[in-house]
Amino acid sequence: MTKMRGVTLDAEWAPKPEFKLGSKDIDGVQTYLGSLVWKNPKMSIKEYDIPEPGPGEVLIKVKACGICGSDVHMAQAKDDGYIFYPGLTGFPCILGHELSGVVVKGGPGAKDKATNKAFVGGELVCAEEMLWCGSCKPCADGWPNHCERLDEIGFNVNGAFCDYIVLPDRCLWSLEPLRAMYKDEKDIFLAGSLVEPCCVAYNAVIERGGGIRPGDNVVICGAGPVGLAACAELKRMGAARVIMSEPQAERAELAKKLGADFIIDPTKADFAQEVLRLTDGMGASLYLEATGLPTIVYPGIEQAIWEGRTLNATVVVVARAEAKIPVTGEVLQVRRARIVGAQGHSGHGTFPRLIESMASGMNMLPMITKKITLDEVPENIIALQTDRSNCKITCVMD
Amino acid sequence: MTKMRGVTLDAEWAPKPEFKLGSKDIDGVQTYLGSLVWKNPKMSIKEYDIPEPGPGEVLIKVKACGICGSDVHMAQAKDDGYIFYPGLTGFPCILGHELSGVVVKGGPGAKDKATNKAFVGGELVCAEEMLWCGSCKPCADGWPNHCERLDEIGFNVNGAFCDYIVLPDRCLWSLEPLRAMYKDEKDIFLAGSLVEPCCVAYNAVIERGGGIRPGDNVVICGAGPVGLAACAELKRMGAARVIMSEPQAERAELAKKLGADFIIDPTKADFAQEVLRLTDGMGASLYLEATGLPTIVYPGIEQAIWEGRTLNATVVVVARAEAKIPVTGEVLQVRRARIVGAQGHSGHGTFPRLIESMASGMNMLPMITKKITLDEVPENIIALQTDRSNCKITCVMD
Amino acid sequence: MTKMRGVTLDAEWAPKPEFKLGSKDIDGVQTYLGSLVWKNPKMSIKEYDIPEPGPGEVLIKVKACGICGSDVHMAQAKDDGYIFYPGLTGFPCILGHELSGVVVKGGPGAKDKATNKAFVGGELVCAEEMLWCGSCKPCADGWPNHCERLDEIGFNVNGAFCDYIVLPDRCLWSLEPLRAMYKDEKDIFLAGSLVEPCCVAYNAVIERGGGIRPGDNVVICGAGPVGLAACAELKRMGAARVIMSEPQAERAELAKKLGADFIIDPTKADFAQEVLRLTDGMGASLYLEATGLPTIVYPGIEQAIWEGRTLNATVVVVARAEAKIPVTGEVLQVRRARIVGAQGHSGHGTFPRLIESMASGMNMLPMITKKITLDEVPENIIALQTDRSNCKITCVMD
Amino acid sequence: MTKMRGVTLDAEWAPKPEFKLGSKDIDGVQTYLGSLVWKNPKMSIKEYDIPEPGPGEVLIKVKACGICGSDVHMAQAKDDGYIFYPGLTGFPCILGHELSGVVVKGGPGAKDKATNKAFVGGELVCAEEMLWCGSCKPCADGWPNHCERLDEIGFNVNGAFCDYIVLPDRCLWSLEPLRAMYKDEKDIFLAGSLVEPCCVAYNAVIERGGGIRPGDNVVICGAGPVGLAACAELKRMGAARVIMSEPQAERAELAKKLGADFIIDPTKADFAQEVLRLTDGMGASLYLEATGLPTIVYPGIEQAIWEGRTLNATVVVVARAEAKIPVTGEVLQVRRARIVGAQGHSGHGTFPRLIESMASGMNMLPMITKKITLDEVPENIIALQTDRSNCKITCVMD
Repeated sequence: MTKMRGVTLDAEWAPKPEFKLGSKDIDGVQTYLGSLVWKNPKMSIKEYDIPEPGPGEVLIKVKACGICGSDVHMAQAKDDGYIFYPGLTGFPCILGHELSGVVVKGGPGAKDKATNKAFVGGELVCAEEMLWCGSCKPCADGWPNHCERLDEIGFNVNGAFCDYIVLPDRCLWSLEPLRAMYKDEKDIFLAGSLVEPCCVAYNAVIERGGGIRPGDNVVICGAGPVGLAACAELKRMGAARVIMSEPQAERAELAKKLGADFIIDPTKADFAQEVLRLTDGMGASLYLEATGLPTIVYPGIEQAIWEGRTLNATVVVVARAEAKIPVTGEVLQVRRARIVGAQGHSGHGTFPRLIESMASGMNMLPMITKKITLDEVPENIIALQTDRSNCKITCVMD
Repeated sequence: MTKMRGVTLDAEWAPKPEFKLGSKDIDGVQTYLGSLVWKNPKMSIKEYDIPEPGPGEVLIKVKACGICGSDVHMAQAKDDGYIFYPGLTGFPCILGHELSGVVVKGGPGAKDKATNKAFVGGELVCAEEMLWCGSCKPCADGWPNHCERLDEIGFNVNGAFCDYIVLPDRCLWSLEPLRAMYKDEKDIFLAGSLVEPCCVAYNAVIERGGGIRPGDNVVICGAGPVGLAACAELKRMGAARVIMSEPQAERAELAKKLGADFIIDPTKADFAQEVLRLTDGMGASLYLEATGLPTIVYPGIEQAIWEGRTLNATVVVVARAEAKIPVTGEVLQVRRARIVGAQGHSGHGTFPRLIESMASGMNMLPMITKKITLDEVPENIIALQTDRSNCKITCVMD
Repeated sequence: MTKMRGVTLDAEWAPKPEFKLGSKDIDGVQTYLGSLVWKNPKMSIKEYDIPEPGPGEVLIKVKACGICGSDVHMAQAKDDGYIFYPGLTGFPCILGHELSGVVVKGGPGAKDKATNKAFVGGELVCAEEMLWCGSCKPCADGWPNHCERLDEIGFNVNGAFCDYIVLPDRCLWSLEPLRAMYKDEKDIFLAGSLVEPCCVAYNAVIERGGGIRPGDNVVICGAGPVGLAACAELKRMGAARVIMSEPQAERAELAKKLGADFIIDPTKADFAQEVLRLTDGMGASLYLEATGLPTIVYPGIEQAIWEGRTLNATVVVVARAEAKIPVTGEVLQVRRARIVGAQGHSGHGTFPRLIESMASGMNMLPMITKKITLDEVPENIIALQTDRSNCKITCVMD
Repeated sequence: MTKMRGVTLDAEWAPKPEFKLGSKDIDGVQTYLGSLVWKNPKMSIKEYDIPEPGPGEVLIKVKACGICGSDVHMAQAKDDGYIFYPGLTGFPCILGHELSGVVVKGGPGAKDKATNKAFVGGELVCAEEMLWCGSCKPCADGWPNHCERLDEIGFNVNGAFCDYIVLPDRCLWSLEPLRAMYKDEKDIFLAGSLVEPCCVAYNAVIERGGGIRPGDNVVICGAGPVGLAACAELKRMGAARVIMSEPQAERAELAKKLGADFIIDPTKADFAQEVLRLTDGMGASLYLEATGLPTIVYPGIEQAIWEGRTLNATVVVVARAEAKIPVTGEVLQVRRARIVGAQGHSGHGTFPRLIESMASGMNMLPMITKKITLDEVPENIIALQTDRSNCKITCVMD
């Protein structure tokens, strides 16, 4: 067999007048400002040659791949026909970046980080979505999430809603430890497809937020995949109370399964007062903004910090938003608080620690609320434009 | 009622020839070098007036108090008659510092840190053992465990193997959060009496050792009370594997109850090779030396670090020992490792976080393997000179 | 001699309708919300008994005391007669908190932190302005700048524009190391009077901001005393470039004397573009907001972070302001940046390190642009309502 | 011109009986255990083709290259004929790794980290000695100094005692900022050849040791190149006192030029007592062990920590040594101290910060005590076996 099928997104390169070709853009090929350039997105399943791994690369048989919100926004057009997704994009492109699979073979010199030896074939792996270069100044300094020469799987290079994918060895992580947790390899692949979004949360609350000490309280605003993963991770890190703020019932229910001790529906209760009530007036040490609605959410966070007695709170902003966050400096001063931004999932030992956490009992499978086939991917990407009842829809390959 | 009984240790002030009165010693009264001064220790139960709280002080009805190894060593004489315990001591003194109780009343200006208001009476509390002054340079700089004007409850000021004790408000911590965990107040007092030793462990592995990130492995050498508490705390912080090295069966069993995933008997297995085997060749991120036998234990720790692939390991030395630790600098260099010393339990938010951890599910009660009355304290302190089958023997007051 | 004179601020307790007596307020005596309560401030020089030191207290002959902006705002009335200063205040009160002096005698038990022994008299000292209690939860946890039972010298307890002052031993710091730097004791007292404001800056940029590594760039917005002190401190910590943004010529000149490599006049140049130009497009690792005008200043800081290539920038907000800071979360995300609030000067080894820095060559005396007598204090406090040409006006006592 | 000359070290592959081929060794080619394998080293100047840069590589005209102690130890035989140097080696090899030069041209895809664009030719650069791979687990996690697939310039791949060298772009750092400091390009190349050894020191005391806060004291044991560089760097970071312990007069003199405030000759004075005397009994916050004689040096460091009042001291072990460090755990406990190992110079923003420090005034040129030509390199490498009067001997190319 030498052919395979892939869920392909195509769109027209039609730069808006205000768009200028940036230093990292390639005319007609890719841009860092997707929503200013790409028009009339279309998804289809196309046939491809199975790729061959080059030096340092690895050929992987994809076994599972989850749909991410960015997949939805790339394939979704606004009224004027331009796509919603504002970031790095290059079309046509096979979508899909939350993948797990099995190594088929390594290219010349490719090595398995788990053994520091060549791949033998058959290894279970997942992958980072960010193909950091390892050579630019941010990479050399230790900040791969801020690589200046980034490629992104399923955005500007072919992704994993297909049968086979070739990836650089440095972005692969072994799922072999999950054999201790799941007896069925299917579960390993499902869990493996969740590693990438869970690492976005881990990077946000633990690497960027500094984590917590056992006995601290945390508040998470927004029970999307990142918020839910943060929920499980912070409970696992010893949070005394994990409080999830989420108006939607299904999401709230899922948060409870993943470790939330309390749920606040911020459309019905006074968020800050509820946080204070649930924490005996202390408030929390870590607040995660995972809604994308800072003008609505931040004032409540700020009030909980101001009125609570907890010092040194960290607010981690992980959701993207265009609106300004209205920050009262005095709250940061009087409560010794801080605000940090979080982006990415690479580096800092995040992937291997997340996998070890899963291997030793942190079960994230409840996040997957629907399993589909490759053929069903396009329709589900479209359905997610309006459906918020599902958390993670995951494509399972043969 | 104005009288009470207290387990009193007396001894003779008989300085050895090499002893010089230090700057913080008081001739005939107290010294920082107990084993060079005090001879012929004797325990008895004596009668005392119930004390009155002065400004900033609080009168507490003691409800439970655990026996600590240092109680044993203070009351134990070597062949030459001098006590084993080498540290700060002033006799006669009521022993006992792992206490919980109920506030009877506060003296003038005394306030409850939990409310920042005056005590009303009836509050459940525990206490730090270290009466840091809050005014010396270390205290002013934020290092109360290294106070230059320290008093220690049950060492040079009267302790808690008695009915009532007066303590400064700043060293008390509310046990009220434990009502969420235990319905029976007796359990709250038992758990409360464990807070102090558990905080020694928390200070060692989390404050001094820097804690871990979820998914890291840890190794604990020695399943005494501090090692066992560290076991529970690091498991709670998300350790993928907690490995306890302990030769004694009862202690090993207890370690499993408190969160250890694996037990190594270092007298039967090759410690380093077992650590490497159990961690797929990675080794651990944190090693706790809690045995007091560094010449025996450290070479194995060092070998596990050297042969394991984990970088940035921290070795926390919490047990006291006279022997030199034989450290190979190259291991610290090649593996980017470090060694830190840990002492005390005060400051850094340790007490309130430990109590919140207990309140939200970290049950340490299995550590208490025997409950006794006040009258039985002296005989049990003596029995512990040879008995290692018990973990924590706790005196429960009426 | 048993009498002394002190610059006294009096005002009427006239709570506005919206004012509610807070838990830490005392009716008719003191409040945490000065500008809502105190009306018609008046300064005068009154006669007092020389105070006697109680337990743990020390009597000090004041030798120098600087005027702070808060002195100005306490004595300044708005159109409706209420004072400008919004914080903790209790009148009548002797003003002045930036003091240095000589120990006359210690009260019972008072000790010199520098020696851990009783004061002998004659020691040169300065003092923290914040009389943190050492007993509340924040103090016990190590955060004295956030003490819940705070008194402040010259705000709600008598200050240092007078001949003698009694202070708790724990808030005093030895100026003896300055003998290595200044031969004339007068210079020691002048430098000593600058320690407190310099520690506000040190706490902001080094304790809260995390300092820098040698070779990093920094930007300071606002050349008031705190901004100027930060300038000297960050240059001393090895900043490659210290860039000061300040429109006023005298202040800018002073910044150069204290270590600034470059000055930006933000009213004439494009702040962000200048920062980028001066740093070869890199921007800075640390930005200090010391103007109190976040709506004007922050957008420029944000733009410099966004367009510069430096990751991990910290914005330290030390100036108080009522206006919201308009924060773009994406800038914090893409540049891995953070915002922290800074308050106070106590704890964390700040005072002794600042004094050692002065003792080893960091000369802050240029900050003092005018010296006055006690009699001239009131008129100078009033002059400072409009005069921005002076940096620090310092009262020198006989 | 297509030919060039290079100082070449050759030796016989003659493994000792106890040597086993390690997983990273290549039979007959290279080993991680040089002193167990290589016999009868010989230096000569040989002719080579000028190399061509491959993908991601850069051709550099070498302009200066310093001699390092490891060059000496590779070329020096013990009595049994085996070389002294114990680490990664592959012969024949052109020696030299402390280089600066000018970019001739970049290979396909090679980019300048300073601009994130292709090299244009003419850029002044220096290089890391460690060719970390950027793909193994330590590199992916952010620890390039612990790369599992390391190559080292001048050890197992051709070095810089020659006219031209090809290096991967990711290991090059721009020296262009030094134009602000030195007018003569010759000085830039000299300073540039010092960047690598200075970064070993920077990595040790600032990245691994955590640096200091302005006003802290530091003690450096051993005025070799690393100790001297640490001297300058810590003084630049605001040390109140930099104390150098060094018996040799020329080295001590050089230390003073580079920032040392005090010199101790440990063969004549009591090291610990001198440290305490010079610091008013406080001791230091950071101790650097840069002698390779831990059994001699560490007891003095430990005593200074024990008797000094400074808490939280860090001992950084940067020199390699086979002897065990005799560590008293109680000193680490009572003084809240720690020991860390330091290795390498890569990552963590060290190179660019060191270069910016040089560019803004940290002049390290006094370290170069002798300049030589390529032809003189072999004889000088041999002379350094016995000569300790020179600090850095630097080969200057045409």
